Amino acid sequence: MMKALQKRVAGPGLELCEVEIPSIRPDQVLVKIEMAAICGTDLHIYNWDTWSENRIRPPRTVGHEFTGRIVQLGKDVVGLREGMLVTAEGHFTCGRCYYCRTGQGHICDDVKILGVDVDGIFAEYAAVDAKNIWPLKEDGDPAVGAIHDPLGNAVHAAYAHCLTGQNVVITGCGPIGLFCVALARQAGARRIFASDVNDYRMDLAKKLGADYVVNAKEDDLAAIVHQVTGIGADILLEMSGSRQALASGLDALRKGAAVSLLGIFSDRVDMDLDGVIFKQLTLYGINGRRIFDTWFQMEAALEAGLDVSPVITHRFGFEEYEEAMALMNSGRCSKVLLLP
Amino acid sequence: MMKALQKRVAGPGLELCEVEIPSIRPDQVLVKIEMAAICGTDLHIYNWDTWSENRIRPPRTVGHEFTGRIVQLGKDVVGLREGMLVTAEGHFTCGRCYYCRTGQGHICDDVKILGVDVDGIFAEYAAVDAKNIWPLKEDGDPAVGAIHDPLGNAVHAAYAHCLTGQNVVITGCGPIGLFCVALARQAGARRIFASDVNDYRMDLAKKLGADYVVNAKEDDLAAIVHQVTGIGADILLEMSGSRQALASGLDALRKGAAVSLLGIFSDRVDMDLDGVIFKQLTLYGINGRRIFDTWFQMEAALEAGLDVSPVITHRFGFEEYEEAMALMNSGRCSKVLLLP
Amino acid sequence: MMKALQKRVAGPGLELCEVEIPSIRPDQVLVKIEMAAICGTDLHIYNWDTWSENRIRPPRTVGHEFTGRIVQLGKDVVGLREGMLVTAEGHFTCGRCYYCRTGQGHICDDVKILGVDVDGIFAEYAAVDAKNIWPLKEDGDPAVGAIHDPLGNAVHAAYAHCLTGQNVVITGCGPIGLFCVALARQAGARRIFASDVNDYRMDLAKKLGADYVVNAKEDDLAAIVHQVTGIGADILLEMSGSRQALASGLDALRKGAAVSLLGIFSDRVDMDLDGVIFKQLTLYGINGRRIFDTWFQMEAALEAGLDVSPVITHRFGFEEYEEAMALMNSGRCSKVLLLP
Amino acid sequence: MMKALQKRVAGPGLELCEVEIPSIRPDQVLVKIEMAAICGTDLHIYNWDTWSENRIRPPRTVGHEFTGRIVQLGKDVVGLREGMLVTAEGHFTCGRCYYCRTGQGHICDDVKILGVDVDGIFAEYAAVDAKNIWPLKEDGDPAVGAIHDPLGNAVHAAYAHCLTGQNVVITGCGPIGLFCVALARQAGARRIFASDVNDYRMDLAKKLGADYVVNAKEDDLAAIVHQVTGIGADILLEMSGSRQALASGLDALRKGAAVSLLGIFSDRVDMDLDGVIFKQLTLYGINGRRIFDTWFQMEAALEAGLDVSPVITHRFGFEEYEEAMALMNSGRCSKVLLLP
Repeated sequence: MMKALQKRVAGPGLELCEVEIPSIRPDQVLVKIEMAAICGTDLHIYNWDTWSENRIRPPRTVGHEFTGRIVQLGKDVVGLREGMLVTAEGHFTCGRCYYCRTGQGHICDDVKILGVDVDGIFAEYAAVDAKNIWPLKEDGDPAVGAIHDPLGNAVHAAYAHCLTGQNVVITGCGPIGLFCVALARQAGARRIFASDVNDYRMDLAKKLGADYVVNAKEDDLAAIVHQVTGIGADILLEMSGSRQALASGLDALRKGAAVSLLGIFSDRVDMDLDGVIFKQLTLYGINGRRIFDTWFQMEAALEAGLDVSPVITHRFGFEEYEEAMALMNSGRCSKVLLLP
Repeated sequence: MMKALQKRVAGPGLELCEVEIPSIRPDQVLVKIEMAAICGTDLHIYNWDTWSENRIRPPRTVGHEFTGRIVQLGKDVVGLREGMLVTAEGHFTCGRCYYCRTGQGHICDDVKILGVDVDGIFAEYAAVDAKNIWPLKEDGDPAVGAIHDPLGNAVHAAYAHCLTGQNVVITGCGPIGLFCVALARQAGARRIFASDVNDYRMDLAKKLGADYVVNAKEDDLAAIVHQVTGIGADILLEMSGSRQALASGLDALRKGAAVSLLGIFSDRVDMDLDGVIFKQLTLYGINGRRIFDTWFQMEAALEAGLDVSPVITHRFGFEEYEEAMALMNSGRCSKVLLLP
Repeated sequence: MMKALQKRVAGPGLELCEVEIPSIRPDQVLVKIEMAAICGTDLHIYNWDTWSENRIRPPRTVGHEFTGRIVQLGKDVVGLREGMLVTAEGHFTCGRCYYCRTGQGHICDDVKILGVDVDGIFAEYAAVDAKNIWPLKEDGDPAVGAIHDPLGNAVHAAYAHCLTGQNVVITGCGPIGLFCVALARQAGARRIFASDVNDYRMDLAKKLGADYVVNAKEDDLAAIVHQVTGIGADILLEMSGSRQALASGLDALRKGAAVSLLGIFSDRVDMDLDGVIFKQLTLYGINGRRIFDTWFQMEAALEAGLDVSPVITHRFGFEEYEEAMALMNSGRCSKVLLLP
Repeated sequence: MMKALQKRVAGPGLELCEVEIPSIRPDQVLVKIEMAAICGTDLHIYNWDTWSENRIRPPRTVGHEFTGRIVQLGKDVVGLREGMLVTAEGHFTCGRCYYCRTGQGHICDDVKILGVDVDGIFAEYAAVDAKNIWPLKEDGDPAVGAIHDPLGNAVHAAYAHCLTGQNVVITGCGPIGLFCVALARQAGARRIFASDVNDYRMDLAKKLGADYVVNAKEDDLAAIVHQVTGIGADILLEMSGSRQALASGLDALRKGAAVSLLGIFSDRVDMDLDGVIFKQLTLYGINGRRIFDTWFQMEAALEAGLDVSPVITHRFGFEEYEEAMALMNSGRCSKVLLLP
């Protein structure tokens, strides 16, 4: 038996319960969880929003961001071994659709998500498909191992462009926006402008290396970017899912610039498409992580010295999950870890 | 003295008047106009919409699409000669801004437009900057010479993608949409879906080579595309400037698809950006013609046998300009020529 | 028991023998072969060159290009069914190396090849990995089904570029060069120049749609290309593995042009790299087929009307294999089929 | 009158002579030279190699790398002013060929080179086309201003790839190779391997930020790269013009890697093209600097903190030119400045 944080009934909240240690299929491994991290998705499930109501079938152990060690190998598993320090890509792809067969598993037609469609990792043990396992360096920071999933989103969005020498605007300083700040800094960006409306996050953006941190409630992002650059920014990484942020981010761009869209708006967006046309902008919708292109890029960035540890602001025990979720809802944190 | 169609006063309409033959600067040529074509922009100026009111300073000879012959060379002009059959890029770029110095003159910071900011070519003669002149083949169709400008817009939008083997959706069958149909056909597209709400244009789309022509008022474009392709289209060329067309065009796409946006919406657009993100779409804003990359591509397409002559549906004498403009306003035509 | 063409002993030749029908693994299907095609690789194995001597471990059933029907499904196979008309990608990739995990299976670190490393398809039945099976349309030409493998090489090499409106040079008119001619024609190339030294192949190049077919022993390819184009070609598809062909192909190019290298030279090549630098050329080494990106592109090209059937010049029964191989060695053929 | 270093007669050497201050055309500016730098081309002209013998028509003032101040403006010059600190692109492009009209002036069909085809800048004053002038920041290092031309070559070669997170091999540690080391460092490369056979240059490579500096005479570059990376390098920047360096650089690469070729070989190169094909490599020939894309990138890199000043190892007065050239011939230096 083991401890697990489960959605037991359709409604708000989670329960810390005793459940059986999962048994594994021949193509899976059993992982002993050492650190877990809370994703916005977990918070949605905790709060029980409309999306959760439609998607989650209790009982379900939630969570998909983790560092752990392999303690058991399914009989068909090759290339892994017991004792390995690992994390995992949480999207289980079908392997047979057009997208899977053309190196685009991140937009697989029949994906299952860890902690959403199958039991997740807010538990002492979890069963994970061997093909999704990503080995970690023993000498790396295990807390950073636990945030590979959102860091991968940032890598996917940021590396859609070569940021070297570019003026980069990042709207939204949640964890993924903060990762983008660090990635842009490492890639030799010329100037990094970050915007948010939350002081806690803005302080972190400064710490991660942003040159200009703009409070969008008080200052005019586009005006500042044009004043500093003389022409406008080359790249916009939209990480906020806020219409106002998108609008001011687009205004901040020079003609011919490029945009990664990652923040989810949760509603239709009223936008100036003619501006996109007249300015000859290119907009990239960014979904998930390229499997495993993004993971190799992430590994390289970390080995080259990327330091995203300041983004991890709080750690709680599994028992303190209510407190952790309340903190997440308050916005006065960035990445929050849960320790079994 | 010569005949010219001029906006003489700030208000609707044009006048056919006698004016002086323009004198040319040392870096210009004088062109005797043989054929002119009416652009939507000319119609806006004729109808005197808000944009025209803000931009046009009468008296102004309008028009920028033409075929003509060089009859006089400015003293600094090299590489051209009298008697040459020519047309021209109508955007006079500054040559000194960031965009001009990096091969992106189509988004020049200080552009002047023929027939808008300087006197145009609805006249017997016009002065044109030598660097903007594009020589035509003597054995080509001079009527096609007169529509190089909008054909170039289509080439710019269509060639943002390699269309070979692709399922292509074209929303909007105005002249530029029709050119896109012909370009996609020539490029070896797998299937071409075109949509409009105007029967006259839909018939032309069929004639130009569209496999499926959808009346958007009666049928569901996205449903048809998904039914035929089984997965969705690879490419959307949005040529309509209609929100509904854009929405159904985006719905028609498979994940990972690409979009050229060229049709102007004239207002903010309420759109499903989350769909763009989840589907990992890429959207390219397309402005004007690349100078002169697009022109060389157009020349190649025509030499390889591109036939866009069915798009030219009517011809009028300069004196019949009122009739020509009324026909343009009726929508029962595609490209309309004006002959001096 | 079944008939199979096997390499029984290390040395030249093959034997038509009776062997057991292969049993299949849970992730394989059993295919009844309807048509097979002879690849240059099969000829190397027949002739027993140095490469074969080092790679082939007799007894080995050779052959990898085929059309057949699935007659039995391994118990783990999903998404296929008995009776399906199919061909297959002949490269069995490991699924675990860097390349396999990043959509680059065509350069897998641990590939096994059908008919080379495992028993192939010059037989009445063959066991093939289910993940490598490519279903064919029932209404397609089964002979074209049998040449998907080399057609895929051509698609990979040709589609490294967008050929629409381009002046394309193809050096070498073996089957893959001929496929390139047809692909360039379909893609709306401006002009296609093909060169070879074998009249039989040159006639086929003309039939497949080349505008200019140059006998490299008699005429100067580069001179002809420059004379016709006035500037040089945009694209070189090097399909010959001949140094002289490469040199004249490079000379035929304009500055800034692009090259696909697919023909194997079998020895070091003495080349003018300074010319590559001064002309700002880009050279792409092309290996195999992208799995399965290339296959989807091939399917699209065929559905859009690509006709490569003239490349299939001869058909023999399995019993006539000596005659078929002798014909292949003579060079007076293009693709040769073997029928069980 | 002014001092100038001229090739007065067809043969080795230069002369420091008194000549007239050049008069300028209406589209030129007169620049007072503050610092000049010696290029390998200048050394070839000094040594009078075969290339110089065929190209240079004495008397000719040599030199094209400089920092200076505008002291006089031609009457047609716009956008510049007297007193500006400047350097210049030394390639005067025709503006009318296919390449110039498509943003590819670096491969112009009719280029004239400063200090080669027209009088250069080893002089107190020089006439330079206004369109080639590149303004410098007043607070920048004027010595770095004088080496923008070769730094631009490095930017062109290095920025053909996004180096962030990549394992980069740089063969050849002349000035351009050293600039590449600094650029790769700034761009967040994962590991930088540099090779040469000259201790002086190898020490500089270490100083500029290379992780591994390999003496190609003593150690096996490819073996070291494979041992450290486990798979091979992602990028090769070939800056040496040495066949052996190219061969070991190619061996050092993983499959699917990319190469910039910039070093001139001065002779045909015997190479393993089959390796290029089997490894699916892409080779980019790199010529000059993109005009002015590369210059804007260089400006951004310098503003983002790129420090290439260690590459400037020696400074001489014009009178000491013999000593400077002897030092250049010795190889015990990197960039050498000449001060009027």
